[in-house]
Amino acid sequence: MPLLVMKFGGTSVADLDRIKNAALKVQREVERGYDVIVIVSAMSGKTNELVGWVEATSPLFDAREYDAVVASGENVTAGLMALTLQEMGVPARSWQGWQVPIHTTSQHSAARLVDIPRDNIDQKFAEGMRVAVVAGFQGITVDNRITTLGRGGSDTTAVAFAAAFGAERCDIYTDVDGVYTTDPRITSKARKLDKIAFEEMLELASLGAKVLQTRSVELALRYKVRLRVLSSFEDTDENSGTLVCDEDEIMESKVVNGVAYSREEAKITLVTVEDRPGISAAIFAPLADAGVNVDMIVQNISERNYEDHPGAVTDMTFSCPVNQVARARKAMEEAKAAGHIAYDELVVDTEVAKVSVVGIGMRSHAGVAARMFKALADENINIKVISTSEIKISVLIDRKYMELAVQALHDAFELEQS
Amino acid sequence: MPLLVMKFGGTSVADLDRIKNAALKVQREVERGYDVIVIVSAMSGKTNELVGWVEATSPLFDAREYDAVVASGENVTAGLMALTLQEMGVPARSWQGWQVPIHTTSQHSAARLVDIPRDNIDQKFAEGMRVAVVAGFQGITVDNRITTLGRGGSDTTAVAFAAAFGAERCDIYTDVDGVYTTDPRITSKARKLDKIAFEEMLELASLGAKVLQTRSVELALRYKVRLRVLSSFEDTDENSGTLVCDEDEIMESKVVNGVAYSREEAKITLVTVEDRPGISAAIFAPLADAGVNVDMIVQNISERNYEDHPGAVTDMTFSCPVNQVARARKAMEEAKAAGHIAYDELVVDTEVAKVSVVGIGMRSHAGVAARMFKALADENINIKVISTSEIKISVLIDRKYMELAVQALHDAFELEQS
Repeated sequence: MPLLVMKFGGTSVADLDRIKNAALKVQREVERGYDVIVIVSAMSGKTNELVGWVEATSPLFDAREYDAVVASGENVTAGLMALTLQEMGVPARSWQGWQVPIHTTSQHSAARLVDIPRDNIDQKFAEGMRVAVVAGFQGITVDNRITTLGRGGSDTTAVAFAAAFGAERCDIYTDVDGVYTTDPRITSKARKLDKIAFEEMLELASLGAKVLQTRSVELALRYKVRLRVLSSFEDTDENSGTLVCDEDEIMESKVVNGVAYSREEAKITLVTVEDRPGISAAIFAPLADAGVNVDMIVQNISERNYEDHPGAVTDMTFSCPVNQVARARKAMEEAKAAGHIAYDELVVDTEVAKVSVVGIGMRSHAGVAARMFKALADENINIKVISTSEIKISVLIDRKYMELAVQALHDAFELEQS
Repeated sequence: MPLLVMKFGGTSVADLDRIKNAALKVQREVERGYDVIVIVSAMSGKTNELVGWVEATSPLFDAREYDAVVASGENVTAGLMALTLQEMGVPARSWQGWQVPIHTTSQHSAARLVDIPRDNIDQKFAEGMRVAVVAGFQGITVDNRITTLGRGGSDTTAVAFAAAFGAERCDIYTDVDGVYTTDPRITSKARKLDKIAFEEMLELASLGAKVLQTRSVELALRYKVRLRVLSSFEDTDENSGTLVCDEDEIMESKVVNGVAYSREEAKITLVTVEDRPGISAAIFAPLADAGVNVDMIVQNISERNYEDHPGAVTDMTFSCPVNQVARARKAMEEAKAAGHIAYDELVVDTEVAKVSVVGIGMRSHAGVAARMFKALADENINIKVISTSEIKISVLIDRKYMELAVQALHDAFELEQS
């Protein structure tokens, strides 16, 4: 039988009524002839309750015990979902991570999936079970300790099951009805996309569009798992939501398909850094060690080349989440004190935001950057840092212009029109 | 190292402060040189929340899913207790049922323990862990489904671990400070016992003293596990509470050590039953099949013997919990309709209570029954049914005299004095 994976997030299973609503969507797919693997999150609020207890008990908690406590939230939902389906006459049972067993690495609270053996679940499908309800977000280590996958873990579980079981599609039910050209709270002109390529979704996810976590999209891209994002709270059919798929499935893509933003950015500049081979490593290794997620990096062109002028200097600018600035500053000051790097001044600008345009069409179309910069210039928005990838152009600007920039770019690339 | 098992019930771990209080008691034992296995219940209220969700989802629920959902409550406490101990500097970790693994039968929601392998926990003790915190009330079947043990399951888990690991003692921390000669709510003369024999505790437990479940005491008796019942909410030392132990440990036992009662009893009489071999089986087999817990049975002496008078009749009286009367009546009426038994009338008295005196001293002392009956007669309390065991005499009386009877018997056997 063809197989679907359906994933329901915390708000989609927040109470018994919502679990029932989700189960009705599962039942519909079963009636259409699918076997289904359902991945569930904890009922919304439950994970926070459990995390709260752990943190109140032990500020520097043992992550193994944290995982053992927190994973119980998904187990409860899995059992309740299986019972709800049974009550509707659908043969279903629940699976906790260890029962599958879902093997992960041993990085507790941030484990990565290693292996999902199919045997146990396949056997039950062969015996007539139509729905396997699996607790998301969790797994076990080789020595049978419980792990959790960290942020976005349930989406990642869903995609991994879809890959392991060769699912026709992985449907991610959530509290929005799809992926939009940009955040509808920023402009009412935002339009829901019917389809989006994996690579575009990946850029949008990592740029702060909260619909899907980067990790699950990466996994979907690697295993070519067709992902669909759709609403738990609306009547949905086979055309609902947004399909995240291979670009080959998208007939005519626009040059730009989305405008993303990230509000909580900071820009840090090291002024008059010694410009020599190895200086980048000397700066960014301690930042990585300190857990700073460096995003954009710009090295201003130095006036002279190192080889003919040993004393050359440069300015090094990078961006990171605004709540990591203190950590970044400490790492830099310690590296300077240890004599690993030298700079005159560390300048922090915490009032910046990042705005990006994304589209696989950029690969074959020139002029996207020029169009973007003109649109921003027309609104008198100054660009502080630019960075580009094959399918994305990002700029750092003053945070106060962020919404204006998103609106201007959405208009400039005519995203309102499908 | 010597080993203790310590069990904390739901009210003893109801919130983070109480978990900390319980952990302090564990820490004290560790400091005294014990390795400790802690068995925990779910935080009080949590099991009810989970059961409520299951019942609201599916009135005739799949017990396997019920167990998977409900067992999560104990898992949360186990993790939080391990974290609390770690925070106090005590090397501890949590164990869920499947991690031990605790093997049980496959009667979901009422599973019985089959085997508790020591290897995994012993290895951690050998590596320096001082406390293994184990989720009570749960286990797994041979095919890795989660089971729960039903009522009193955590006490049973505790005793079983004490037996499996050869613990010096199994301390059951609860919301009372020990076992009393009778319910202190009935008479203020009730006195806490320092020691009580397994067999006496078993009779008291099965007679409705709610401190320990019968099942856990049976297991303690079978494996000679010394059990101590004591309060979570008081300062306790090695002499606190009540020790349930082998009678050899009790130097001078009274003839009677406790007066128990059970309020929710009913008396059912089948009038003019055909008195022939096999009639008892014909009556009590269908009652057992219907799940009626028959307690006392009295067959009135028939006037004539079956062999010289085939038409002899008798009255058959039995008692059962008052909420099982409807079931008992239905079973009897069906057996009559099917021609398996014959009787003229089924008389139900739902206004009765059972009062019992218990003491291993009865074995060697005559006159206990006479003293009991006189004490009741002095209060003009009519005895409806009598039943005796080696160490117990029970009577059914009108429920309205129950408290009076308990008080009179407590006085008559001088239980106030130690």
